[in-house]
Amino acid sequence: MHKLKLTYFDIDGGRAEPARLAMHVGRIPFEDDRFTFAQFAEIKKAMPLAQVPVLTIDGLQVTQCNAINRFVGKLAGLYPRDPFQALLCDEILEAVEDVDNRIGPTLGMQGEEFKRARKALVDETFPRYLKFLQARLLARGGDFFIENRLSMADLKVFCLIRWLNSGLLDHVPTTLVETLAPELNRHCQRIAQVPEIAEYYAGRAE
Amino acid sequence: MHKLKLTYFDIDGGRAEPARLAMHVGRIPFEDDRFTFAQFAEIKKAMPLAQVPVLTIDGLQVTQCNAINRFVGKLAGLYPRDPFQALLCDEILEAVEDVDNRIGPTLGMQGEEFKRARKALVDETFPRYLKFLQARLLARGGDFFIENRLSMADLKVFCLIRWLNSGLLDHVPTTLVETLAPELNRHCQRIAQVPEIAEYYAGRAE
Repeated sequence: MHKLKLTYFDIDGGRAEPARLAMHVGRIPFEDDRFTFAQFAEIKKAMPLAQVPVLTIDGLQVTQCNAINRFVGKLAGLYPRDPFQALLCDEILEAVEDVDNRIGPTLGMQGEEFKRARKALVDETFPRYLKFLQARLLARGGDFFIENRLSMADLKVFCLIRWLNSGLLDHVPTTLVETLAPELNRHCQRIAQVPEIAEYYAGRAE
Repeated sequence: MHKLKLTYFDIDGGRAEPARLAMHVGRIPFEDDRFTFAQFAEIKKAMPLAQVPVLTIDGLQVTQCNAINRFVGKLAGLYPRDPFQALLCDEILEAVEDVDNRIGPTLGMQGEEFKRARKALVDETFPRYLKFLQARLLARGGDFFIENRLSMADLKVFCLIRWLNSGLLDHVPTTLVETLAPELNRHCQRIAQVPEIAEYYAGRAE
């Protein structure tokens, strides 16, 4: 058994959340190492590439959220063994990361530049990716993204959709997903009802 | 045996090159579907997410270069079976993709904005990532990135280093890698001498 520590912001979302959820679903023991936004300037000095999430595994710090997702997904039984199914799972993980990479630069913006950048996301990026993800989901049966069962792909999309629906992203209507790709909202509700996930968030809300 | 077609720009580099190299190293038959920059506006209409590379596998179009790299890497015997080694391989694949994602937006820029953006890459992004990659390489013995043998991680870094050294990136000194992380140049030369890779590029030069 590896000794695992996952270091990330103390938020119920973002780039570490799929890995946290996977470890809860798979009952994988890990240290949930959280810090505040104010602490990040100090924390990042000790992180390779000055980034988080970082998974510390038996003392070695490893970066890159989808690398971490894939590894904990294997530990938790949430990543396909078949190479073709793994390809399809990876396509979803990386497509969502594309979206996160487009949102990222807008987080520090202000004023007219901020509005313009968010409008470009709402007008172009989100429609393109949300429709793509919905089409992939429907092509695989509509319930889960891969192999008709819960996988890291579901957890990654779930975290994105929760964020888009949350109202936390200024200039992004909370009705956007429902308008563009309503099946992704059905999927999001389905994942939220996975017993270990429902239980986890109930515990977080206490 | 899958029927494989890899669609990408007709250049000896970029996001499809590690997968092309892997299929040559592994003697995996595939259709090397190349197009010119002028053709891209038309090509992308037929691509999911309007992106390339796309791997068409038994008629299904799959996007995302590292998903493709991992899949063909498994076919070619260039991707670790052990989950921990796979994690370390993925970290390298995704760290290089981070760099590609930072270079990407500068490709369309002009004038002062272009110079400023390239200067930020040269002053901050490249030093951070090149030193990280060099440290990872040295920690694994200095010859290869994973398991002391050729893997997708080596091919991914090889393509980045060739690009940075090529002179094709304006405002990026071709001495940058040698100055910041000379072991990555030794690694690049080592990978270029892998017989199947040397043979492949000799054929491309004819």
